[in-house]
Amino acid sequence: MTKVIRNGMIATDSQVFQGDILIENETIKAIGIDLSADGAEVIDAAGKYVLPGAVDVHTHMDLQSGKYRAVDDFYDGTVAAACGGTTSIVDHMAFGPVGCSLWHQVEEYHRLADDKAVIDYGFHGVIQHVNPSVLKEMKEIAEKEGITSFKIYMTYDFMLKDEDIFRVLKQAKEDGIVIAVHCENDGVINYLRKTYVEEGCMEPKYHPLSRPARCEAEAVNRMLHLSAMAGGAPLYIVHLSSKEGLLEVMKARASHQEHFAVETCTQYLTLTDDLYQDRQEGLKAIMSPPLRKKEDIEALWEGLHDNIIDTIGTDHCPFNFAKEKQAGADDFSACPGGAPGVEERLRVIYSEGVAKGRITLSQLVNYLCTNPSRMYGLYPQKGTLLPGSDADLVILDPGKERMLTHADMHSAVDYTCYEGMKVQGDIDLVMQRGNVIVKDNQFLGSRGDGKYLKRHKSILAD
Amino acid sequence: MTKVIRNGMIATDSQVFQGDILIENETIKAIGIDLSADGAEVIDAAGKYVLPGAVDVHTHMDLQSGKYRAVDDFYDGTVAAACGGTTSIVDHMAFGPVGCSLWHQVEEYHRLADDKAVIDYGFHGVIQHVNPSVLKEMKEIAEKEGITSFKIYMTYDFMLKDEDIFRVLKQAKEDGIVIAVHCENDGVINYLRKTYVEEGCMEPKYHPLSRPARCEAEAVNRMLHLSAMAGGAPLYIVHLSSKEGLLEVMKARASHQEHFAVETCTQYLTLTDDLYQDRQEGLKAIMSPPLRKKEDIEALWEGLHDNIIDTIGTDHCPFNFAKEKQAGADDFSACPGGAPGVEERLRVIYSEGVAKGRITLSQLVNYLCTNPSRMYGLYPQKGTLLPGSDADLVILDPGKERMLTHADMHSAVDYTCYEGMKVQGDIDLVMQRGNVIVKDNQFLGSRGDGKYLKRHKSILAD
Amino acid sequence: MTKVIRNGMIATDSQVFQGDILIENETIKAIGIDLSADGAEVIDAAGKYVLPGAVDVHTHMDLQSGKYRAVDDFYDGTVAAACGGTTSIVDHMAFGPVGCSLWHQVEEYHRLADDKAVIDYGFHGVIQHVNPSVLKEMKEIAEKEGITSFKIYMTYDFMLKDEDIFRVLKQAKEDGIVIAVHCENDGVINYLRKTYVEEGCMEPKYHPLSRPARCEAEAVNRMLHLSAMAGGAPLYIVHLSSKEGLLEVMKARASHQEHFAVETCTQYLTLTDDLYQDRQEGLKAIMSPPLRKKEDIEALWEGLHDNIIDTIGTDHCPFNFAKEKQAGADDFSACPGGAPGVEERLRVIYSEGVAKGRITLSQLVNYLCTNPSRMYGLYPQKGTLLPGSDADLVILDPGKERMLTHADMHSAVDYTCYEGMKVQGDIDLVMQRGNVIVKDNQFLGSRGDGKYLKRHKSILAD
Amino acid sequence: MTKVIRNGMIATDSQVFQGDILIENETIKAIGIDLSADGAEVIDAAGKYVLPGAVDVHTHMDLQSGKYRAVDDFYDGTVAAACGGTTSIVDHMAFGPVGCSLWHQVEEYHRLADDKAVIDYGFHGVIQHVNPSVLKEMKEIAEKEGITSFKIYMTYDFMLKDEDIFRVLKQAKEDGIVIAVHCENDGVINYLRKTYVEEGCMEPKYHPLSRPARCEAEAVNRMLHLSAMAGGAPLYIVHLSSKEGLLEVMKARASHQEHFAVETCTQYLTLTDDLYQDRQEGLKAIMSPPLRKKEDIEALWEGLHDNIIDTIGTDHCPFNFAKEKQAGADDFSACPGGAPGVEERLRVIYSEGVAKGRITLSQLVNYLCTNPSRMYGLYPQKGTLLPGSDADLVILDPGKERMLTHADMHSAVDYTCYEGMKVQGDIDLVMQRGNVIVKDNQFLGSRGDGKYLKRHKSILAD
Repeated sequence: MTKVIRNGMIATDSQVFQGDILIENETIKAIGIDLSADGAEVIDAAGKYVLPGAVDVHTHMDLQSGKYRAVDDFYDGTVAAACGGTTSIVDHMAFGPVGCSLWHQVEEYHRLADDKAVIDYGFHGVIQHVNPSVLKEMKEIAEKEGITSFKIYMTYDFMLKDEDIFRVLKQAKEDGIVIAVHCENDGVINYLRKTYVEEGCMEPKYHPLSRPARCEAEAVNRMLHLSAMAGGAPLYIVHLSSKEGLLEVMKARASHQEHFAVETCTQYLTLTDDLYQDRQEGLKAIMSPPLRKKEDIEALWEGLHDNIIDTIGTDHCPFNFAKEKQAGADDFSACPGGAPGVEERLRVIYSEGVAKGRITLSQLVNYLCTNPSRMYGLYPQKGTLLPGSDADLVILDPGKERMLTHADMHSAVDYTCYEGMKVQGDIDLVMQRGNVIVKDNQFLGSRGDGKYLKRHKSILAD
Repeated sequence: MTKVIRNGMIATDSQVFQGDILIENETIKAIGIDLSADGAEVIDAAGKYVLPGAVDVHTHMDLQSGKYRAVDDFYDGTVAAACGGTTSIVDHMAFGPVGCSLWHQVEEYHRLADDKAVIDYGFHGVIQHVNPSVLKEMKEIAEKEGITSFKIYMTYDFMLKDEDIFRVLKQAKEDGIVIAVHCENDGVINYLRKTYVEEGCMEPKYHPLSRPARCEAEAVNRMLHLSAMAGGAPLYIVHLSSKEGLLEVMKARASHQEHFAVETCTQYLTLTDDLYQDRQEGLKAIMSPPLRKKEDIEALWEGLHDNIIDTIGTDHCPFNFAKEKQAGADDFSACPGGAPGVEERLRVIYSEGVAKGRITLSQLVNYLCTNPSRMYGLYPQKGTLLPGSDADLVILDPGKERMLTHADMHSAVDYTCYEGMKVQGDIDLVMQRGNVIVKDNQFLGSRGDGKYLKRHKSILAD
Repeated sequence: MTKVIRNGMIATDSQVFQGDILIENETIKAIGIDLSADGAEVIDAAGKYVLPGAVDVHTHMDLQSGKYRAVDDFYDGTVAAACGGTTSIVDHMAFGPVGCSLWHQVEEYHRLADDKAVIDYGFHGVIQHVNPSVLKEMKEIAEKEGITSFKIYMTYDFMLKDEDIFRVLKQAKEDGIVIAVHCENDGVINYLRKTYVEEGCMEPKYHPLSRPARCEAEAVNRMLHLSAMAGGAPLYIVHLSSKEGLLEVMKARASHQEHFAVETCTQYLTLTDDLYQDRQEGLKAIMSPPLRKKEDIEALWEGLHDNIIDTIGTDHCPFNFAKEKQAGADDFSACPGGAPGVEERLRVIYSEGVAKGRITLSQLVNYLCTNPSRMYGLYPQKGTLLPGSDADLVILDPGKERMLTHADMHSAVDYTCYEGMKVQGDIDLVMQRGNVIVKDNQFLGSRGDGKYLKRHKSILAD
Repeated sequence: MTKVIRNGMIATDSQVFQGDILIENETIKAIGIDLSADGAEVIDAAGKYVLPGAVDVHTHMDLQSGKYRAVDDFYDGTVAAACGGTTSIVDHMAFGPVGCSLWHQVEEYHRLADDKAVIDYGFHGVIQHVNPSVLKEMKEIAEKEGITSFKIYMTYDFMLKDEDIFRVLKQAKEDGIVIAVHCENDGVINYLRKTYVEEGCMEPKYHPLSRPARCEAEAVNRMLHLSAMAGGAPLYIVHLSSKEGLLEVMKARASHQEHFAVETCTQYLTLTDDLYQDRQEGLKAIMSPPLRKKEDIEALWEGLHDNIIDTIGTDHCPFNFAKEKQAGADDFSACPGGAPGVEERLRVIYSEGVAKGRITLSQLVNYLCTNPSRMYGLYPQKGTLLPGSDADLVILDPGKERMLTHADMHSAVDYTCYEGMKVQGDIDLVMQRGNVIVKDNQFLGSRGDGKYLKRHKSILAD
């Protein structure tokens, strides 16, 4: 099976050039000029961009979060991802039962994903308590399952304390494992949430007030110091949302600290906490960290422009507005946190970022494709368009326009945070390992076509 | 009773000028030229500096620390202070029994100090657990006792967790109380101490390795964010010891954060962790935070030169080398932490700072006298030479030299960390409320002459 | 002749305290509590601030500038200064005839000032060309006349080129002389002025466009490097007007460059380039550098708040709106540059700075009194309230309000830039060397009462 | 004619991957896996790096500099370049006769280069005076000759004054032309050179003293402001040599200034001013700016590591030690300035930069190949390995070692500054437009094979 993508503007993380891509079976065979192959199917991409299939390393499919379960299982969620140009995900596991082995969730997630996912998928492990056995399992799981990253939390019920974080980081340094971390100061948030609720301040607008940007900044700085003290433990800060947090990152970069990467998400680059003003609509945007201010958005785009932030994820974690989200109708603190986004990312970032001149197309490729792949041990199989790489790609037409609306989307959830947003550029076609799985926003693939991704070492571990 | 200090070079926190100081009874009546008063005793200060009596807001007299008790009671300790040019102290209380009321230690410290102190003294409260009653007592004690500052710890047995720190800071903001804080990351230190001991690494040289500078930096930054999130709670960071920590302070200053002050101590400006190399001698310098590197010393002097650091204290907390310190002979972690310093401060800082051109004399006055007084609600009674201020002063002869040696000192402890150091400049005379209490290194005062200092609000609370 | 200022809130550059000031003849004899002296005249200052008489080190009295002459001679100008609380000036000489000796203007200025000035006055020399004889005269004039500072220009007809600036700086370093400098890039300004005029863009609004802030920033940075390369030549940057310029200063401070000071002026802290929009009114504000934007104002106040800027001057240089200024009615580039301000400074800075909480009263004293005096070799005779200092002082009533209006002012000029501005606080009384020379805005002194000030070395030369 | 480079580690400016390169005639046809073509010549590159042919945008072939002429004509110089892995140069023209048209040197340089150059070559124009005709010629020459960059000097006889620089920059902005600039403050250098010579300080060691790093820093900052004031005129700062200069660049980057690029050179990354201590040997390193200190070298490598500097050039400008350089034997200021380097660059930077871990291989590709090409309008024809690009490439064996010595080099000059340096890695083969022109350090090409490069617009002009 041979295909040629003809005459597209091929975009890599540093260059954009015109050429053909020759695909044999599942991988890229060559990139060149006037490539031909007998019997090859030709896909004309003249006037269009050809990007690597996007990699989303921050999703929560089929997540059990307290009483609620995210409404996208691995089928619905990956169909949505595919339709948004994402051809690989690395999903963040939910917490398991108290005291469980790290293997427990690994097995659970294979059950959840293996026959359902339509794009390639991997998992981040999750560490919810620390003891010698857990520390030993990290390496086992990395070696046997190719799960070379684990998530920890600095807040929530299963947060780790600094001493345990430090133990995890020391182990991670030794084993070459990346620790992904949700950075927020638990003590302050705990106090503020309780206090607001006690005082009857229970509308969505109190959600951001209960999680100030400095909570994030403090925790980011703490993690950076902990990683450095652990000898340079590979660290990946998820969903940076604030200017305050970015300032801490800039300080670390200026002091030449290495071995860490920083992710922000679509929503922190585009939406503000004004959304929380409406008592009902505000529920849709309840997530942690919360949406911030216009000046945070500007700071984060500058961080991307200046290559201080490394990746853009989605933190896709959808709950239905009509159902689960209503748990927060009278008390924001009872609302399940999270919002959909796996499908919107590429379109929104292309339009708000590239079309508006805030970042270059190569930077988009880097932040959505190449860097996530590098940071999580998928490179060069995923996230780039090199000979030998999987033939995952997106053809994007910069001349088209689209109005984002829930009706056109594929997640099982009942809303999108970007309803009515007009975007410049649209996705023509998505290819996964040589197969066209999306065309004109129609999903053409099949349940279970996704392959499990055993990942190798991150470049953060070098 | 009238005295005139004649013709000295009077040094304030911003100016140095020649003049006379007229003293009536316990206070300064006037500063002028050719002041005369019938029957006044004249003290000639020509060619010498006249400084405000120094204020040491970081001492630990008669401290019970675990199994050990600091060897200076309020008599010995204040005699030593006086002989070093310090005429006021604000002492940090030890922890009380588990769960005790804040009043417990207030009463205990009056018992310890009231008939013994030879110079004026106040107390910082200490918060070792947090509940509504404790939060209420803060204000009561501030109002009734003039104890307008409380100490908290981010490490050690009675450390507070972030949520409790935040509650204390919110209360402090409301009540106009200063929170003094020992900033070190407990989790990392706890892990490292245990690990070193388990691995048999128990010599003094492992002490600094178990408390990296980034532990301090992390905690400093955390406190700054917590204070800011509490609305600008008055914050006083004690004993800053490292360049890393200073960088965090500089970041906060650059962002115009207010309502905080930073103290360093004599030892962090002059001694390095080389001292820990000797298995026995190293015990003398076991304190927390530990001594650092030459580059930290340079950074801290630059911080003083640039007015980024606010005060220099001593953290005087003496244990006998021959006795208590030997508890650490085979295990650094068993050694009582602390070292003497209340008597050495002014001479060492004058010599190393002013005589060597690193800071001006007015900066010395600011860091040892005026700022500590301002930060802790003693100004303008103490720490300055204004009309109406207490006639506490030091006459310092810049032309003299002295070799520091334990034999000449007055603390009950059996060593000094500065043994053999040659200092430029020496103290001729110390006056407390109009009385000469030290002359030529001889203490001339009497047990119990010190008055208890009810303190008002700090300028940090403005 | 003895006077007592009773019970005022005495403000120095670092402290504000209640007390009395005892004055004997022309100087301060003592500062104290309940000072009395037989037969002394008592001036009650209860509830009021007592400040050192302000020092304005940037005025242009009787200045011949091209075809025009500033309308205040040394009598009118110093009366205006006095009524604004300024008791000493150091005036910037105009250029002399081409090629003239440095002595030429010294003599000329004595003729202009000696019998007219009503407050104490000194001169800055001016260097308009460089040769060995000029370089020699600098030292002679410093020694014989106490003129220990010389002004140079980086733009205008008599600008010096970099090589000559460097020669002057090397000489100044050797002789301990301060070089005051007007920093703007001549090449760009020259080009822009010509181009605007050629294109018929001749209204006042083109004035600021012809002198961009980066012209200042560039020249400031250049001078800082030149001074450093000359070994740390004493440098005083006059009238800093922009955020861009301030950024250059901050960079130098961060790298610990010494031996320089930075002045801004009242107008750059309060007025914006909106004033140039009006074709006629705009002429009133034509000066160089021009007024800037709101964000520049904010940056400059922050620079004062953070002690990055050292002094506030006026650059008083008045031309009548009805007459001289009309030369620019059809061509901004033909308008004589300069505006009045010697009388407005203290009231405006107190109101906009201290009353609005941007700077403290001690900072005001430092920027208007003590620092100018220190930078130009008048300290401690002027600019402070020490025993032995000249009894120059201002009693300021913080409770009063005033609306600034030209009718109440004393300069010979026909307008004020601050017409209609309401200020908080007002001047009750101004004393010069023990004599009340202004009371309730009435000048009570006499022509020629001002004494010539022979100045000593600046602290910048240490 | 078809060739396949088989199985090399292909290095681009952002990625390094294994693959084949298929070349048809002069260009790259495809990059892929197992590429084959009938009758293709196969070059095995297994275990070796394949880089784009290096681009040197800073050479001075056949340069007449005052009384002396650089000893490499376009034949010798380009043979040396080729043997060092450089396949394209953009040469800096010498000054022409006083007052000459910009076309004069264009024609002269075609005469000098057209039949001699063995690699592809372009020219930078040079502006030695400014008038309307010169400003008009810039665009003509850019359009007709593809000379889209012009060099100016801030020092030397034909330096431009700020006003003329500004005029050039305005024109360049309008025409999309890059201005390359030699940044040093002329005034200070002029003074110091004269003074040293007058004082008899004429040995090479006075050369660096006569051109302090702050001269560079000042001029860099000046140019950055001038470019910004000209509306963002495309600016290329040549041969940055100092930490002080880098600090100015960092400030501009931090303020998000765009449209400028910064070059450093091999020698400023590897050699120090210690070389000037020897009276004779020092002559070899006389160049401007001079070699600096170890800390400058470290700063520049950090600048490369952090992507603050954009390119590494050579400033190749060789004079014979035995002859021309001896003109400076008794007077450093009479020595022709310049040194060889066109052949040494790639080997030295690979060894000192990549092999020592200071920069990545992709950064080397960026600084030596892709960025110079982008900055000067040669991209994507040169400096990259894209389909359609010229088949210019270097095969580098990272396992080899070499000792640099003049005997192995190809320039006409009689020395190398790197004599005896051991380098890790060596060049196996150099290909120019599909032809192997160097193999095992033997030049295989022919005189005049180089093609003239008409360049398009720089990305700096976007």
